[in-house]
Formats: sequence, structure tokens, C-alpha cells
Amino acid sequence: MTIHEFLVPPAVACQRAGPHDQIVMSSRVRLARNLKKHPFPSWAKKPDRLRVLEAIQPAVETLPQLAPHFAAAMDDLTPLDKQILVERHLISREHAAKGAGSGLVVNQEETLCVMINEEDHLRMQALRPGLQIKACWQAIDDLDSALEPKLDFAFTPELGYLTACPTNLGTGIRVSAMLHLPGLVLAEEITRIINAANKLNFAVRGLYGEGTEALGNVFQVSNQMTLGESEPQIIERISKALNQIIEEEENARLLLMEKKSKIVFNHIGRAYGVLANAHTITSKETMNLLSLLRLGGELGLFTKLDRSLTDEMFLLTQPAHLQQQHTEKLGAEERDILRATMLRTRLRDIPRPQAPE
Amino acid sequence: MTIHEFLVPPAVACQRAGPHDQIVMSSRVRLARNLKKHPFPSWAKKPDRLRVLEAIQPAVETLPQLAPHFAAAMDDLTPLDKQILVERHLISREHAAKGAGSGLVVNQEETLCVMINEEDHLRMQALRPGLQIKACWQAIDDLDSALEPKLDFAFTPELGYLTACPTNLGTGIRVSAMLHLPGLVLAEEITRIINAANKLNFAVRGLYGEGTEALGNVFQVSNQMTLGESEPQIIERISKALNQIIEEEENARLLLMEKKSKIVFNHIGRAYGVLANAHTITSKETMNLLSLLRLGGELGLFTKLDRSLTDEMFLLTQPAHLQQQHTEKLGAEERDILRATMLRTRLRDIPRPQAPE
Repeated sequence: MTIHEFLVPPAVACQRAGPHDQIVMSSRVRLARNLKKHPFPSWAKKPDRLRVLEAIQPAVETLPQLAPHFAAAMDDLTPLDKQILVERHLISREHAAKGAGSGLVVNQEETLCVMINEEDHLRMQALRPGLQIKACWQAIDDLDSALEPKLDFAFTPELGYLTACPTNLGTGIRVSAMLHLPGLVLAEEITRIINAANKLNFAVRGLYGEGTEALGNVFQVSNQMTLGESEPQIIERISKALNQIIEEEENARLLLMEKKSKIVFNHIGRAYGVLANAHTITSKETMNLLSLLRLGGELGLFTKLDRSLTDEMFLLTQPAHLQQQHTEKLGAEERDILRATMLRTRLRDIPRPQAPE
Repeated sequence: MTIHEFLVPPAVACQRAGPHDQIVMSSRVRLARNLKKHPFPSWAKKPDRLRVLEAIQPAVETLPQLAPHFAAAMDDLTPLDKQILVERHLISREHAAKGAGSGLVVNQEETLCVMINEEDHLRMQALRPGLQIKACWQAIDDLDSALEPKLDFAFTPELGYLTACPTNLGTGIRVSAMLHLPGLVLAEEITRIINAANKLNFAVRGLYGEGTEALGNVFQVSNQMTLGESEPQIIERISKALNQIIEEEENARLLLMEKKSKIVFNHIGRAYGVLANAHTITSKETMNLLSLLRLGGELGLFTKLDRSLTDEMFLLTQPAHLQQQHTEKLGAEERDILRATMLRTRLRDIPRPQAPE
């Protein structure tokens, strides 16, 4: 079974709902752990990495929390499979680049995903739609507790859990949320928000994490400090910050509709017009325009446009998901044409946005 | 009666048809004449200019060729009236800037328009929809012959008719056509065509003549030499060149549809999508997108889009025509919003373009 046969189809995945999901696309908590007496993956030779993989993967696979699950060594996955996993936000781009000695275990609900020999021996992730940081933390804490008796984690009383990169030392916890912030972008308030978040020691990144662009007005907000604060403190602090950003986005949308509604309608109308009528379109333009369509849906400008449809198009139009729907190998130009065809078809029965009079 | 009350509404004007009007928007022949013993307008003092106006205007107004006509001194026209005349291509932008001592006489059909004290004392223009250079020439020759006995034109056997600018010396004739060349622009062949036309001593200019941009892929092609060739020779030569450009445009369209149809559909689809859904749009963007819509209509991508509708929108969305439809004085931002509203309304019942499968 391939990974895309295992995972539920995007149309089903995009039906998943959660608190504040008009703004928060997903929440995630990630824990980094390493085994004692084994070099970190970047310093490890292939036999070392294989030993770690062979120690960790069976331990993870026995956990009931992950059932039913899909497990694979990274060298058994095709480049397309790996890219599908990146587009689903289940693995990092760095992990997708790994080969022999790295692996992954993911459950069918896509709420738990374990990367083996990414930057650390073990990176466990809990994911939830909407703002569900605490639920993610409980799930990951539970997974960690279940694994702890089975594996010998590197830990010192002074530094806590040891990690390959010192920024993950201590709790090894990284809490993040993917936020859809078109209101703050249109209101030109986004830089102020990012600066404020940075001052509070939160990182704000693009759609695919570190070093990536904020395509589709999607921003990833995460904690940077893992040492000196307990897990509940970290979760408390980031939850507070996320709630503030949600409020700022809501206010920005209200203010835009009150003071600059023509500009908002103009962006949303043009986005719809292009998506529904283009015959070739890049992934990047698509994401940016779908973001505006999503906003339009939430502002009530569309009569027949569900958020799940925009989210599904957002996923299905990304390169690997698009390739996966076709048997022949597609070049970039062909993808742009097929992406446009799909969007035109999907939007055929969605009437033009109507601004309230 | 104001000029826009006198002229037929754009919806009616845009119904006018002529040969090759899928490419040639209009043809024009202009004659420059000056009265003996009066300084050219640019060197003339106001009393001189008034004397010329008083000599020419009554003579022109008596001609049956122009009936029914509208005549006015330029200082009796509002800036809006003048701009309406420019957008209708009845007077030059230079003439619109004139005040006391300049005048105009135009017939209701918009086939004849006389400018008094523009660059020369008298500039007579004959206009026709489509490619009708010879008909324009006959009309202007007839007008000239009717005026000749009434006015004393400056003429020498060596130089022919004297004109303010030496480039108009001799016959004083300027023949031009407005060509819609989106095919050559999309095929990136337009520079080659312009260079070839220039080599044959034809000028290629933008929508509003000298020094203006080719908005909406509309180019004005005209003769540059007025000395050393007879009128029939000039007309023969430019007709030949225009027919060649028409053929090039037709070939470009055929080739694009054969080899780059996706690109053509993409441009036309996006143009339609934006025009039908924008909430604010500039005049310039509108012209460029309407040009693609006009092309789409001619390529059969629209089931319900007449050329007269695109041409009417082309005219009605220009600043003065847009202002004329509203009582309050509009700023640029308000015009952009009202322009978009008009386009959305006009395109509400025009279904999306359909590419042949």
C-alpha cells in the first residue's frame, strides 16, 4: 500500500473541523528525543542510523495510539510519496530529503506522525485541525510516556532531553500553529504582528516551515525556547499569543469590511475571476488566490463555497498532489495547465462572489 | 445642446460596421489647410486667431456635407466635453487644450469633423468604421472642393499647400487607420511589424496619436510623407501596407490558436475573469483586458459577446465618458470603482469563455 492509498482523500481530510478553524488551519506539538549512546543523525554513519531506525521503528509500531498506521523506511518511498507527505504537512522538507536509515510512522487520522532520524533520532508530532494546542500536547505526552519505557532516551538533569540542535534542548518541545492571516496581510498589519511575535520569542515562518515563503497568507507560529520553561508554561504562553493573533486577524477583517470593503471585494472578486477562468496557473499564484477565496467564503461573499472546498483545492493543486492524479510524469508547464483545468472545473458551479449592497 | 447630447450614444455608435472591422477599428483621412495672409495658429495672437475662426467656421457650417452638425468655439466647451471628443477620436488632445480662437464642426454621423485653429487654420477629417481609406478620401476631397471656392488657401506651385509644420507640406494629407492587433502583440511579433512599417515611412502610434501608448493593443498607422507623392499614390501605398498588417494579424491569430492556444485561452479567460469580478479597475487595465475580450469574441470563445458590446465598454469606461454618466464630480478612485461596477453589470449575463475541447 502506498502512502496516498493509506491516507484519506483530501476531500475527506479537508472536512476535519476544529476550534477557530476559520483562522487556525492546524495545531501541532512536536517532541524531539534521542537515544543514549548513539550519535545524532547528522554525525552518524549509515550503520549507526540503521541501528537507531531498527530500535525505534518497531517500538513505535507497537503503540495502540497510532493504529491503524503506515510505516516506511524513507528509501522505500518514492520522491512523489515524500512530496505528498510534505504537502500534507506530515513530514518536514528536510526529512523528505532523507534516504536509508530514516523512517516514518503515521496514523490514518493524520493526528500522529513520527519521523525517525530526521535531525534527531525521534521526532514525534501530534496534529489537530483548528486551535487545539492542549489536545496536541496531551496526545504527544501520552505517546512519549508510552515510548519512554521501551527506549533509552538521552537525558541529563541539568539540560533535560539532549537534542542535535541546542535550540531544542530541555523539553525538546516545539509548539506551532498554521494561521491563515489574509486580513492582516491586506490591512498591511502583518509586519507589526510578526515583529511583536518575534519580540515574545516566537518564530513566524512560511507554509513549509523554516526558510519558506508565506504562500497563501499562511504563517506558521512556533515557540523558539525549549529550555527554562516547563511544557505547560510553553503551551500557556503560545496559546495566549495565538489567541491574540486570532483576535487581531478578526479585527483586521472587521475593519477592512467597514473601511475598505471595496478593496477586499476587489481582491476576492479578481481572485475568483482568475481561478475560474485561467488556463495555466502556477502553484504559488493558486495558493495566494485560494487564500482570498477562503477569506471571501468566510466573509459571506459566496453562496455555495465551503471552506472544505477551498482547502481541498489548496491541497490538490500542489505539485505532488497534482502529479498523483495523473499517470504520466508531468513537467512544470503541464502541471500549470492541469492545475488551471482542475480549478475551472471545480469552480464551474460556484457563482461569482456577490458583495452585499 | 451639448456635444454628448448631439452625438449618438456609444451603444449606437459602436454598431457601425465596416470592412475588416474585426481588426481595423476605424479609418481616417485628414487634410491640413491654411488661409493666406494669416499667421499660423501657434504664431498668431488672439485677434488673428479669432479672425481666422470667424472666416472659416461660417463657411464650414454652410456645407450640406456636414448636416446635421454641431459647431462650437473651443472656449464654449467644458473640459468634459473636450475630453469626450478626444475619447471619440473626433479631435486631437492638442485641440482639446485650445481655448478662445479655436473651434470645431462635427456632423452627427461622426464621419466628418473640422478642427479650426489646431496646428493649422483648418484640419478637415473624414472618418469611417473599418478599412475605408478610399471612402474617407472621397469624402474629404469632396469637402475640400466645396470649401476651396469659399476660402483663400495658402498654396504655392513648388510646395503645394503650406502648413505650420513642414511634415504636412504639399498635399497636407494624413491617412491613418486604428488597428486592433492583439494577435501580433501576444505572438510577440508587433515590434517586427512596427519596424517594417517605419522603414516604409509609416508612423505607428498609440491609441490617442503622437506620443501616446498603445493601450488595448490599438495602434494608429499613418503616412509620414506628404510631399512628393500625389494623394492617390499615398492612399494606394498605405492601403497596401494596411492590408499587409491585417494579413499578418490574421496569420498571428491562426498560428496562436494552432500552436499556443492555451496561452491565448489563458489571457482571454483571465481578462474576462478580472473584468467580470473586479471592484476597482483603472482605465488602462480595462482597455488592455477589453482588447483580449474582443479577441476572444472573434475567436469564438464567447457565445453571447458581440463586438459592439466590447467596443461600447471600451468607450464608456474611459474617464470622460464615465464622468458623463454621473452628475457629481468623480475623483480617480471613484471612477475606478464605478468603472468596475459598470463592467461587472455589463458582463453579468455573458457566460465564461469556453475553449473548444
